Amino acid sequence: MPLDHSEAISRDELQLAARNHGLPLEVLREPLTPVGLHYTLIHYDIPAVDVAAWRLTVDGAVGQQLSLSLEELRTRARVTAPVTFECAGNGRALLAPRPISQPWLVEAVGTAEWTGTPLGPLLQEAGLEDAAVELLFTGLDRGVEGGEPQSYQRSLARPDALAGEVMLAYEMNGEPLPPQHGFPLRLVVPGWYGMTNVKWLSAITALTQPFEGYQQATAYRVHTEEGEPGEPVTRMMPRALMVPPGVPDFMKRERFVAPGPCRLEGRAWSGLAPVSHVEVSTDGGASWDEARLGGDDLGPYAWTAWAYEGWAPEPGSYELRCRATDSAGNEQPEDPPWNFKGYANNSPHSVTVTVQEGA
Amino acid sequence: MPLDHSEAISRDELQLAARNHGLPLEVLREPLTPVGLHYTLIHYDIPAVDVAAWRLTVDGAVGQQLSLSLEELRTRARVTAPVTFECAGNGRALLAPRPISQPWLVEAVGTAEWTGTPLGPLLQEAGLEDAAVELLFTGLDRGVEGGEPQSYQRSLARPDALAGEVMLAYEMNGEPLPPQHGFPLRLVVPGWYGMTNVKWLSAITALTQPFEGYQQATAYRVHTEEGEPGEPVTRMMPRALMVPPGVPDFMKRERFVAPGPCRLEGRAWSGLAPVSHVEVSTDGGASWDEARLGGDDLGPYAWTAWAYEGWAPEPGSYELRCRATDSAGNEQPEDPPWNFKGYANNSPHSVTVTVQEGA
Repeated sequence: MPLDHSEAISRDELQLAARNHGLPLEVLREPLTPVGLHYTLIHYDIPAVDVAAWRLTVDGAVGQQLSLSLEELRTRARVTAPVTFECAGNGRALLAPRPISQPWLVEAVGTAEWTGTPLGPLLQEAGLEDAAVELLFTGLDRGVEGGEPQSYQRSLARPDALAGEVMLAYEMNGEPLPPQHGFPLRLVVPGWYGMTNVKWLSAITALTQPFEGYQQATAYRVHTEEGEPGEPVTRMMPRALMVPPGVPDFMKRERFVAPGPCRLEGRAWSGLAPVSHVEVSTDGGASWDEARLGGDDLGPYAWTAWAYEGWAPEPGSYELRCRATDSAGNEQPEDPPWNFKGYANNSPHSVTVTVQEGA
Repeated sequence: MPLDHSEAISRDELQLAARNHGLPLEVLREPLTPVGLHYTLIHYDIPAVDVAAWRLTVDGAVGQQLSLSLEELRTRARVTAPVTFECAGNGRALLAPRPISQPWLVEAVGTAEWTGTPLGPLLQEAGLEDAAVELLFTGLDRGVEGGEPQSYQRSLARPDALAGEVMLAYEMNGEPLPPQHGFPLRLVVPGWYGMTNVKWLSAITALTQPFEGYQQATAYRVHTEEGEPGEPVTRMMPRALMVPPGVPDFMKRERFVAPGPCRLEGRAWSGLAPVSHVEVSTDGGASWDEARLGGDDLGPYAWTAWAYEGWAPEPGSYELRCRATDSAGNEQPEDPPWNFKGYANNSPHSVTVTVQEGA
C-alpha cells in the first residue's frame, strides 16, 4: 500500500470516496442511523443476488453440511439488537503520511437495528467438529486486491464465532437488508470493526487450520513496516463524535454559532468495554471538561449519547474537541501510533467554530 | 470559486465527498435506484424536521395565502413518475483546471419513483396573480455559501413552475422521503439538473420580480470568467453511463474481464429531448458502434436502458466509452466547453478494462 506525504487526495482515492460514504455528522443526533446515511465500505461491486436461487452453505469440519434458503433462515430463532459499526480505516485520511486506500476522515460509522438468527445454534445443528478452530465467512462479492483475484473472505476464531451476540442478519432497521448492506444475509459481530461483518454471505466453512487469505493475513493488520505480519485488527477502539453545532459553510464545513449558551452533543462507543467517560474541550485541547452520558439506552453493542452544557461562548474562533474513555481504561490518544495501512486512528474529533452575532 | 490545476483533491473537497455520494456504477443495472444508492448533494446540514409542526406556506403574489400540513397535501391529487436526477456538477472533478466544489467524477445520478401532488393546481387554488413572474422555493436547510448566510432557495419562471409534470413529492420509491432526500416534502422538476429539486421545502412564494438570490444569480451559472453573469444552469445535457463489466480492482477500480463475448449495458438520459442514440467505443473513441435502446420503459422523465453485444475481446487492454445523442441533436462532445464552476461536463464515460484468461 503506497503512502502519500501530502494532504492532497489522489484520483484513485476519490473514486472510492464517491462510491462509499460516511455518516453526515449532523445525523449523530439520531440514535439509529437511517439506512442511506449509515456508512458503507464495499471492496468490490455490490453483487446482484437472485434470492430464489441463493443459499447459505455451512460446510467444512461439520457433521452435516447445511444448505439453507432465506425463508429457512427466517423461520429459525430470531434476535434483534442495535449495533454500532465502524470501518477499521476510519481516521485514515488524517494520518501523515497517509496510507492510500478509502480516505475516511471521521465519519465511517453508523448504528442500525439488526435482526437475524444467532450463529451458535446453527453451527451446533451442523455438528461443528471439535477439530474446527476457525469459521470462514465467504461473501458473493468478487474482485482483485493486492494483485490477488478473490471473493471477500474473513474468518473468526471458534470462541469469537460462538459468542452469543453473533448473528446472521437479514433485516436492518426492520426492513430486508438493502443491497449495499449485504442483501440477503450478512454476518454481524458486535464490537468488532466493520470488515468482520461479511456482506452477501454465501458460505460458512469450519476450518481445522487458521485462514491465511488476503483479508486476514495481508489486509487488516496493524504494523509499522511493510511486510511485517503485525497484529490483526479486531475490536473497535473508543471514539466520541460530536454533532457539529450551528450551521456550516458549504465548502469548508466550518461552523457558525450565535454567542451564548450552546449545547454540545454526540455519541461515543468502544468495542472493548462500555464507555465510561466523554470529555469535551472548547479550547483546542488545552483543557477538558466532563460530558454527561446517557439518554437513549440502545444496549451493550451500540453507541452512548453524550451532552455538554458548559459552553456559552463570546464571539471569536474556537476549536471544539471530544474524546471517550472506556471502563477498561482505553483512551483516545491525541496522536495514536501510526500504522502502515491506516487502521484505528481514533485521535479526538475536532470541530472549528466561528461564534458571531446573527449566526 | 478557486481552481485547482493539479489532479489532486483538497481536504475541503474530500469533506464533501465523504458526506455526499454517487451511484455505485454497477447499480446502473437497476431501473430504479434503491434509496441509499441514489446520489445526494446536500449544501448545508440535513435539517431535523418535526413533521407535526411542519407546514408548507404558499404566499407572495397570490389571492389567498395557504398553509398546508403533510396530511393535507397527501389528500390532494396524487401523481407518480420515475424521474432521473443528475447533479449539475457531475463530471466536475474531470475538468482541468478543476473548480473547487463537490468533486464528482461521473456518478452523481439516480432514478427514483417520486410520488406527490402536482404543483399547478395548488398555485391555482392559491389564486396565483397575473403579476407573478417567478415562483421561489425555500428549503429548511441553512448555511453560509460564498460568504452569505442563507436558506437554500431557488426560483422557477412561471411557465416552468406550471408545467404539468412538476410535483411536490412526499414519497420516494413508495416510502416517505428519507431525511437526505428532503423529508417531508421536496420539489421535483423532471428534466432539470438536481439543484432545482429543492429539498425540505417550507415555502413557495410568488414573485413579481425575478429572484436574485445566491443560488440563482451567483451559483449555478455557466460562465468562463469569474464575475461574468453567464447563463443559468437549467436542463440536463445528454449523458450515457455504462455498468462497468467484469470485476474491479479494489483501489484502481480498473476492470478485469474474461476473453470472449461480453455484453455491455447501461443507461442514458437527456433533459432536453428523448435519447435517440447511444454509441459504444471499445477502442478508446477511435471508432463507435450503435447500441440498442430500450428494455424497461420508465416513461418520458427517466433514463433509457441501452445494450451492446458486439464486443468479444481477445486478451489485452481496452478503453470502453459510451455516449448519447438526443432527438433534438444534442450530443456528448469529447471535450465540452470548460466553465468556471464546473457544471454539465458531459464528456463520454470511459472505463478501462484488462481482458485476461481466468478473470
